[in-house]
Amino acid sequence: MSLEIENRRAAVVAELPGRKLDALIVGNGANLRYLTGFTGSSPPAWIGWWPDGALFFTDPRYTIQSKQEVSCRVRVSKGPLLPAIVKEAGRRKLRRIGFERSRITYDGYDFLRSNLPARSSPEPVAGLVEQRRMVKSESEIAAIRKSVETNSRAFEQAVAHVKPGVRENDLAAELEYRMRRLGAEKPSFETLVAGGVRSALPHAQPTSARLDAGSLVIVDMGAMQDGYASDMTRMLFIGRPGAKVKHTYRAVLEAQLAALAAVRPGISAGAVDRAARSVLKAHGLDKAFVHSTGHGLGLEIHEPPRLGKRDKTRLQKGMAITIEPGVYLEGFGGIRIEDTVIVTETGCEVLTPTSKELRVIEG
Amino acid sequence: MSLEIENRRAAVVAELPGRKLDALIVGNGANLRYLTGFTGSSPPAWIGWWPDGALFFTDPRYTIQSKQEVSCRVRVSKGPLLPAIVKEAGRRKLRRIGFERSRITYDGYDFLRSNLPARSSPEPVAGLVEQRRMVKSESEIAAIRKSVETNSRAFEQAVAHVKPGVRENDLAAELEYRMRRLGAEKPSFETLVAGGVRSALPHAQPTSARLDAGSLVIVDMGAMQDGYASDMTRMLFIGRPGAKVKHTYRAVLEAQLAALAAVRPGISAGAVDRAARSVLKAHGLDKAFVHSTGHGLGLEIHEPPRLGKRDKTRLQKGMAITIEPGVYLEGFGGIRIEDTVIVTETGCEVLTPTSKELRVIEG
Repeated sequence: MSLEIENRRAAVVAELPGRKLDALIVGNGANLRYLTGFTGSSPPAWIGWWPDGALFFTDPRYTIQSKQEVSCRVRVSKGPLLPAIVKEAGRRKLRRIGFERSRITYDGYDFLRSNLPARSSPEPVAGLVEQRRMVKSESEIAAIRKSVETNSRAFEQAVAHVKPGVRENDLAAELEYRMRRLGAEKPSFETLVAGGVRSALPHAQPTSARLDAGSLVIVDMGAMQDGYASDMTRMLFIGRPGAKVKHTYRAVLEAQLAALAAVRPGISAGAVDRAARSVLKAHGLDKAFVHSTGHGLGLEIHEPPRLGKRDKTRLQKGMAITIEPGVYLEGFGGIRIEDTVIVTETGCEVLTPTSKELRVIEG
Repeated sequence: MSLEIENRRAAVVAELPGRKLDALIVGNGANLRYLTGFTGSSPPAWIGWWPDGALFFTDPRYTIQSKQEVSCRVRVSKGPLLPAIVKEAGRRKLRRIGFERSRITYDGYDFLRSNLPARSSPEPVAGLVEQRRMVKSESEIAAIRKSVETNSRAFEQAVAHVKPGVRENDLAAELEYRMRRLGAEKPSFETLVAGGVRSALPHAQPTSARLDAGSLVIVDMGAMQDGYASDMTRMLFIGRPGAKVKHTYRAVLEAQLAALAAVRPGISAGAVDRAARSVLKAHGLDKAFVHSTGHGLGLEIHEPPRLGKRDKTRLQKGMAITIEPGVYLEGFGGIRIEDTVIVTETGCEVLTPTSKELRVIEG
């Protein structure tokens, strides 16, 4: 891994001259892990400069961990890290210093602006590291695959024991426990279990409500394993589903399959979204599809590209994305079906092994 | 709760004229929950203006949830929310518009600066809502107490079954499962379980390493229940502890008790930190105490005040803080003891009911 990480750093630093930058400051946790190997959750920072300099700054709590993990020079610094970075930039006479415009706070920016030497300027940079992270390496795809498998196995283990009357938050607890026991560090986002009319809230947190007969249940879950995310949504039905549930489920599944069929290198993210949306339109359900069709994932659960109506990013081989159309009908419920997939040379590989049939739970 | 929330909004809006602001934009999740009652995790936004206006902006995914939860007017807006806020500010001729300087990204700031009407200006505001959140109401203290109790019960339940040879991440999974089953939404941060020399990493994530005889084990855990955080650290020892472990443990416990004894309204946060630090100095361990003595907590796991060497905030009745000195010795291990406490009229109440004796686990 260490050589791969060094190559990533070299590639990022090699982009600096083209952007008229002497250096780049990185403070976002996922970007830092990508560039240095550091797995800690609290924010250290890194500065790399052209042609071949790099320093990782951290505070004394991470002295030992940084030594073990980080594959570039480490500077342990008491107190806030931006002052230490500013000092280093001054000493090295770095002039145009890039910062992550969508990650740094106004406070951080204001500190740089006010404290960099007069000859230096902070320059906003959009997604330089994130752009590189969109296409995954073989080792990253292997990590995502492992995360997906853990997630699906946890789902099977937990759902095998679901009985009518189980509480939403107890099922969520069971799902998360199983994924941890299977090797996940944590869920990649808050596990969503919502039954009945609450399934119509696309992002409902689990409550103590019971999943009783007649409930449509949405389960949206993902693992974070060895730093990489997975993401899956499946539907349960407690009891015997009626015609409207069955019909709506078929429509969403058809939309999800249409989007999967559209995925291939060169297609725009927006065209994949439209593939799902037009199926739902044919069923009169497009107005109930209130979010985009998917998103990239990797070291973060939400990464570029976004697969929304107007997104123009062209898909490339090696991208990891979700495909997750859904419809939400107030007073009835919501239905979403989601897989994690990898864009391949000719189309895509659906990593998620879990069956996409509506899972019927009878008492 | 709804009246309490309305009063919070009124109090925040009442501060605007004194800061020469016509309005304030809030986008941070915890600040939003405090001011509106919205429990969702994705970022909507709120704008309040003098003397009595307020609008909650969200996207279509949260239409139903906002209606149920939010106690002020809701505007559902497709796409990014800042453009909708800018439009509203223009329509209402709001001029000096505050934003959260430590929460908004440079991108958000840059959007406001570039898109607000010429007569309007974005004005950085530091911690206006956070300052108000430092002192907790009765209902907030009750929520923190519940979170602390859940956390301690989960610890007892899980630790009762610990046997030598258990893996760090299996114990972490068990702790988190128990807290969820007891009513927590999630852990308030990544549960830390680290044994042997790894306990010297103040923020180590659990691994698949086994906790074998002779291991000092640090367990740092917290629950998030009804939106409020708890935080506790306790130490286990697998087998029979030697003299150095016992001596070091006593020193840290003495430091923790000294800091607790110092807590009272009117004392500075720094003085509480120094109370712990001077005990460790007397034991020759002050250099191994590489972080501050504690931090506020509530809707977030880390809130002001910070209890560091130079922090001048005066403690006030109703503040919720952690007291958590620790020492970290490379090649030996780390020891930290942490409680969640409430500042009372005369001193403090330690909410954490868990015994502070070193927990010895014999085979």
